[in-house]
Amino acid sequence: MSLSEKARKELRRLLGDRLLEAESDCLVYAYDASGRTYLPEAVALPQNTEEVSRILALSYEEEFPVIPRGAGTATTGAPLAARGGLVVAFTLMDRILEINAEDLVAVVEPGVVNGRFKEKLARRGLFYPPDPASYRFSTIGGNVATCAGGPRGLKYGVTRDYVLALEAVLPGGEVLPLGTRTLKGVVGYDLTRLLVGSEGTLAVITKITLKVLPLPPARATVAAGFGSEEEALASLNEVLSGGLLPAAAEFMDEVTLTATGALEPEIKGLLLLEFDGLDSTVKEEVEKALEILDSRTRFLKVASGETAETLWEVRRAISPALKKLGTRRIADDIVLPRSKLSVFVREVRALSKDFGLRVACFGHAGDGNLHVNILFDEEKEGAESLRERILSLVLSLSGTISGEHGIGLTKRAYLPWEIPPRALSLMREIKKVFDPKGLLNPGKIF
Amino acid sequence: MSLSEKARKELRRLLGDRLLEAESDCLVYAYDASGRTYLPEAVALPQNTEEVSRILALSYEEEFPVIPRGAGTATTGAPLAARGGLVVAFTLMDRILEINAEDLVAVVEPGVVNGRFKEKLARRGLFYPPDPASYRFSTIGGNVATCAGGPRGLKYGVTRDYVLALEAVLPGGEVLPLGTRTLKGVVGYDLTRLLVGSEGTLAVITKITLKVLPLPPARATVAAGFGSEEEALASLNEVLSGGLLPAAAEFMDEVTLTATGALEPEIKGLLLLEFDGLDSTVKEEVEKALEILDSRTRFLKVASGETAETLWEVRRAISPALKKLGTRRIADDIVLPRSKLSVFVREVRALSKDFGLRVACFGHAGDGNLHVNILFDEEKEGAESLRERILSLVLSLSGTISGEHGIGLTKRAYLPWEIPPRALSLMREIKKVFDPKGLLNPGKIF
Ligand SMILES: Cc1cc2nc3c(=O)[nH]c(=O)nc-3n(C[C@H](O)[C@H](O)[C@H](O)COP(=O)(O)OP(=O)(O)OC[C@H]3O[C@@H](n4cnc5c(N)ncnc54)[C@H](O)[C@@H]3O)c2cc1C
Ligand SMILES: Cc1cc2nc3c(=O)[nH]c(=O)nc-3n(C[C@H](O)[C@H](O)[C@H](O)COP(=O)(O)OP(=O)(O)OC[C@H]3O[C@@H](n4cnc5c(N)ncnc54)[C@H](O)[C@@H]3O)c2cc1C
Repeated sequence: MSLSEKARKELRRLLGDRLLEAESDCLVYAYDASGRTYLPEAVALPQNTEEVSRILALSYEEEFPVIPRGAGTATTGAPLAARGGLVVAFTLMDRILEINAEDLVAVVEPGVVNGRFKEKLARRGLFYPPDPASYRFSTIGGNVATCAGGPRGLKYGVTRDYVLALEAVLPGGEVLPLGTRTLKGVVGYDLTRLLVGSEGTLAVITKITLKVLPLPPARATVAAGFGSEEEALASLNEVLSGGLLPAAAEFMDEVTLTATGALEPEIKGLLLLEFDGLDSTVKEEVEKALEILDSRTRFLKVASGETAETLWEVRRAISPALKKLGTRRIADDIVLPRSKLSVFVREVRALSKDFGLRVACFGHAGDGNLHVNILFDEEKEGAESLRERILSLVLSLSGTISGEHGIGLTKRAYLPWEIPPRALSLMREIKKVFDPKGLLNPGKIF
Repeated sequence: MSLSEKARKELRRLLGDRLLEAESDCLVYAYDASGRTYLPEAVALPQNTEEVSRILALSYEEEFPVIPRGAGTATTGAPLAARGGLVVAFTLMDRILEINAEDLVAVVEPGVVNGRFKEKLARRGLFYPPDPASYRFSTIGGNVATCAGGPRGLKYGVTRDYVLALEAVLPGGEVLPLGTRTLKGVVGYDLTRLLVGSEGTLAVITKITLKVLPLPPARATVAAGFGSEEEALASLNEVLSGGLLPAAAEFMDEVTLTATGALEPEIKGLLLLEFDGLDSTVKEEVEKALEILDSRTRFLKVASGETAETLWEVRRAISPALKKLGTRRIADDIVLPRSKLSVFVREVRALSKDFGLRVACFGHAGDGNLHVNILFDEEKEGAESLRERILSLVLSLSGTISGEHGIGLTKRAYLPWEIPPRALSLMREIKKVFDPKGLLNPGKIF
């Protein structure tokens, strides 16, 4: 399965200089955030659905792999040409086709960058909640194909909850409209949401219809520091049991705080809570949250606007800061039922001691989604065994091994840990229904 | 494909007197709200997953159809034994297995009635939004299998948005856990949501893990009457464009209001808006809504608690009231982009005149989901042609022919109007992957 000379010729005719073949040009599309690299045989930069359809028809005839690619921010190798073939990058299909405030709907091409979309919407008083930390770079197409999440999962859900309809191109080139422009719709099986999170292995997405919301007029952040991780997590549960639904609820453990060095060393667990809504709502929610938090905290701050941004800086500084504690890392984005977070963090502490390796836990604790980073320099084997112990722990606590990043290339070995054999075989058969020749992003997920 | 003597014997051994075989017993399971009847060959009342698994294993060996059934409130014939076989009713699998306020999760058996579930949750300060008008009778299993909606779609979404995990039994009897107990999860294809809305044709659901929310402490209803349908719909759009997100936004047209006779004849369009949330939020939202509505209304009322209930009585009285205008009716639950509602209602008026038949439009206008009822006595053919004109109109306005009720038996002819051939063939192939022998709820959807 590789690009024949005939295929190359046809692609050149179709795309002209929007077919990249020089190694130096292809190199830019050879990596993602997983650290792996695979040089594609060539890269296509289509400008419209028609071109994508032709590429997929040609791929079917000439039997070469096609690998869809957004911004390449995946952490799993999902957009890499691991088995050769043609990378189809959506850089040039980046138009916002429609923003309809009356229907609360927007239609975009897959290459639209999440952050740019958010900005355009905000100018119209609208809001698209899914906000992966990569939002300044990652594309809506990539977000849909990975079902991207972010801190706002608890109150606002994930990408899946906003995708109303898709235009998808099947292997072979047929263009299919799926779903409806409406919030409700139950006509036939839900192929739209089957494509969400399918990591480019079932169809190539060329147009996306999204639900959007009115932009909440007010927003405020509460930062609360605690003497222990347990106190922080227990307080979060109290806030949520008190009926409050923050737009974001982030947690940072002791290791993470040490790395950032932003707070007094006596603060061993930090919560960042963001509330949004009408003015009066935000006021009432913040007051209630403060009441609940006040008794236990060693540090408590409310801020909005610019000042709130400086609080969130601490959160954004984590990734670079962790480099101080280890030149290498293994990062997972596990999710647990929220009631299990405390036990989990405690057991990770014990495992971390046993293995003599530092582990940082931080992230979207509101919806149970934690980033677990094993930090090391040379101890690769130990780090890998520790990772397996942590993933087993997650599954034993009714959690999932990935809440946002997916399987791609790098987590395939763990897929059968979570998914029973018969469910896996159903998934493989569904893959065959869409892609009988196995040409679309081969070697991913399974 | 019918129940062999051997199959009957095995079923008797397995279920004892929970296998119903007498015609008089089976009759109760022969109908739903579609008006069609098909006497099942027998009815099974399993008590647990193990029994369901054995039934499906036997069905596979002996090749008889299995038709899952909740409360039989479907309007499409979906739970009927249209091709003979065994109805499996979940009346006895009605336990609420867990309500976990900390995780905001509940686990139920499929036979749990939506209304009873809501009550139990409310006592714990929790809330499950999906509220089909049939909530006092319909089951969570049936709700999941049809992706039930209700008035709260706009703010709270539909059943799909609350299903986290399922236990499903496949044709052949294998029991599969699908999904995770967590809000986020992207490991493999989304089989959980593929089953939502699949009308019992892919697998039998035996356990359901649902996301629940904190119960909003305050709630208020605004009723606004207008001199025309257009003014009512335009005002709704203004409210929503003003950034307000009511929990429910119901619309009633002139025909509907005439039938109920609850208001002055000069009121030709009615909106019922419900706001929920914190006290201060509800107050602020109601005030803003009143400001927007005030200029155009001929009737404006705010109420909460018992008084609000009397306002909602008007809504609930519609179905019986419409009988006054016609002994028979054809009812569809179409959805339109909200910006198209006005045009739609206007064109339906014109068609109604052309055909000399009354048409009532009412329902969940907030999310674009309208119930369209063609009322008639003898004019069946005219009513059916009118229906086809209305469904074509819906599709030409980027709508969908069913937002909640699904396809079942009675809307199969219209499925290809909305779904293109290749998407249909993908759906059929997915059906084959799950149910190669075609034993599960045969003759439905396709
Ligand atoms: C610093 C950093 C922070 C991150 N934070 C988060 C976070 O908070 N939450 C989160 O969910 N993720 C996060 N991620 C992961 C990543 O950003 C997301 O998965 C993102 O959705 C990927 O988008 P992309 O445009 O970069 O897609 P790519 O990485 O290019 O591709 C991702 C997958 O989508 C497929 N794909 C892309 N476009 C299409 C298309 N048009 N049709 C079909 N398939 C397509 C690709 O084949 C691939 O399988 C983070 C990554 C980094 C580097
Ligand atoms: C007065 C009235 C008002 C209504 N209002 C609404 C409304 O506002 N919104 C709305 O969405 N619907 C509404 N409906 C339609 C109906 O109530 C819903 O579709 C409801 O979800 C059906 O639930 P049920 O338990 O009655 O299921 P049934 O009617 O028994 O079955 C419905 C479908 O689910 C399948 N099924 C049932 N249980 C299982 C299981 N355990 N595993 C697999 N498949 C299963 C059946 O095979 C069938 O295909 C209304 C109906 C009536 C009569």
